[in-house]
Amino acid sequence: MKTRITEMLSIEHPIIQGGMHYVGFAELAAAVSNAGGLGTITGLTQKSPAELANEIARCNDMTTKPFAVNLTFLPTFQDPDYPGYIQAIIDGGVKVVETAGNNPAQWLPMLQDNGIKVIHKCTTVRHSLKAQSIGCDAVSVDGFECGGHPGEDDIPNMILLPRAADELEIPFVASGGQADGRSLVASLAMGADGINMGTRFIATQDAPVHENVKQAIVNASELDTRLVMRPLRNTERVLNNPAAQRILEKEEALGKDIKIEDLLDEVAGVYPKVMTDGEVDEGVWSCGMVAGLINDIPTVKELIDSIMAEAESIINDRLAKAL
Amino acid sequence: MKTRITEMLSIEHPIIQGGMHYVGFAELAAAVSNAGGLGTITGLTQKSPAELANEIARCNDMTTKPFAVNLTFLPTFQDPDYPGYIQAIIDGGVKVVETAGNNPAQWLPMLQDNGIKVIHKCTTVRHSLKAQSIGCDAVSVDGFECGGHPGEDDIPNMILLPRAADELEIPFVASGGQADGRSLVASLAMGADGINMGTRFIATQDAPVHENVKQAIVNASELDTRLVMRPLRNTERVLNNPAAQRILEKEEALGKDIKIEDLLDEVAGVYPKVMTDGEVDEGVWSCGMVAGLINDIPTVKELIDSIMAEAESIINDRLAKAL
Repeated sequence: MKTRITEMLSIEHPIIQGGMHYVGFAELAAAVSNAGGLGTITGLTQKSPAELANEIARCNDMTTKPFAVNLTFLPTFQDPDYPGYIQAIIDGGVKVVETAGNNPAQWLPMLQDNGIKVIHKCTTVRHSLKAQSIGCDAVSVDGFECGGHPGEDDIPNMILLPRAADELEIPFVASGGQADGRSLVASLAMGADGINMGTRFIATQDAPVHENVKQAIVNASELDTRLVMRPLRNTERVLNNPAAQRILEKEEALGKDIKIEDLLDEVAGVYPKVMTDGEVDEGVWSCGMVAGLINDIPTVKELIDSIMAEAESIINDRLAKAL
Repeated sequence: MKTRITEMLSIEHPIIQGGMHYVGFAELAAAVSNAGGLGTITGLTQKSPAELANEIARCNDMTTKPFAVNLTFLPTFQDPDYPGYIQAIIDGGVKVVETAGNNPAQWLPMLQDNGIKVIHKCTTVRHSLKAQSIGCDAVSVDGFECGGHPGEDDIPNMILLPRAADELEIPFVASGGQADGRSLVASLAMGADGINMGTRFIATQDAPVHENVKQAIVNASELDTRLVMRPLRNTERVLNNPAAQRILEKEEALGKDIKIEDLLDEVAGVYPKVMTDGEVDEGVWSCGMVAGLINDIPTVKELIDSIMAEAESIINDRLAKAL
């Protein structure tokens, strides 16, 4: 398939694997890129620029195709060594960076002067326009249904994608609710140039996470996610589990007086416990509503091939024949 | 365009105008049906079966095409004369009824024995399956983005439509977030057999409502709706206005102790004031997020023609050429 995104990123299929903490290791990124999509290594899962450099080198050993690194600019207690991480990205020959969180403007020259395309994740039209105005090459538009941080406006992709298409000139991919050929064709019809999938890629044989995590996603329905940390205006969509319930109870009990410190037990440092050790109930972790559409654990290549075959069939058979 | 819904309802385009209080009069229903869609008279806007019979007769005078009547089965203080309304529908030769609210099972034999197709509005997969199991002919699947009553599960159409497609055998139309050819093709791609539009049809020259209402929709962005009455588990998506703000303040102040009686000033009897008199700030009224995608006030025929032309162009040009 050929879209503005496949052209810009030199990839075969308009399918991007989004950055995911303790999931986006070289194994998954390489599998996605080898299957014709764009894999992504999650930068801050690596504890130092040297470790990121090593992860990029491992990925380069596993694929000759382009892959991305995700860099999340979040307010944190201890600011990561962003210049160091970016240097590792440049030195590793990475050609695409997915930025998320705070405005990436100050890092754009360093990235783009080295031939790196920047895709910024945005949950609103106004943030997307801001990303365009500061010179980002593309935007990943995150709907309300997405796992992780959907923002505070609660606008689903059925509205957000055509709105973004009306306003943006740069290409954009749809993030949130993306599972199969149906989501891909729907997103393209609404104006997106491709899709970004997170949760769907976790439930693949190539994802280097514990089997319990994959099974939890397969078992979940679309009703099994919850929004936590809304009172802190740092909303995160997570799988409903005992930890999510404890957070929601604390949020209700403490009301407006709640502070991030009250929730640290459930949110700090849980990703290795969940993703690596498989203790899926021991803390909250991002999961999109799309879990309700995930019923199998294919290889990444099987997944991407089936998405593209289904998309082609929807366009050539279902849609063309309805006319 | 030909889908299971156009075949079942004998209409030219898979576009249904949903029931809307004090909007769904004969003028709008006839305009939609004359343009090749399925118009809908809102049954309970008519104060008696005799008045509904009159409204149906007026519509029959304005169109020879099929149109529907919406019948909402809600818990109300004074139960409407449903057998009387249904008799008026049968006597008027109406061939389609859109049911909403409570389970319509007890009314199905009377309707279907008279050759009437029943489309039940549902906001969840489980309600859709229930509607199928009791013998409804089709379902209208309402996503979180829809105006009016989106239910309590908050599942947007990007998830709800493919989930419904996976589970249902009967045809279904997508409701919520539907504005244009993009929404139509996206909904068809995700498995729907057509679309149901509400808010979009209010902002047309044929809608028999005050100009202020149409202008309020054109002026609204996707951020300008609010969910009210959630603490009562009777959530309604309405246009944000002073009345909506007053309700939200009362809901916050009263918390779990809130009763419908506390909100009656803002919700009871406001539709004639808003829709007929144009006092758009004097009470809350249903409005979908799709308001953000509505920027003009065309005739119904112009709207439907442009949706179909855009849909054809998306399928034949944008999608087919991406392959």
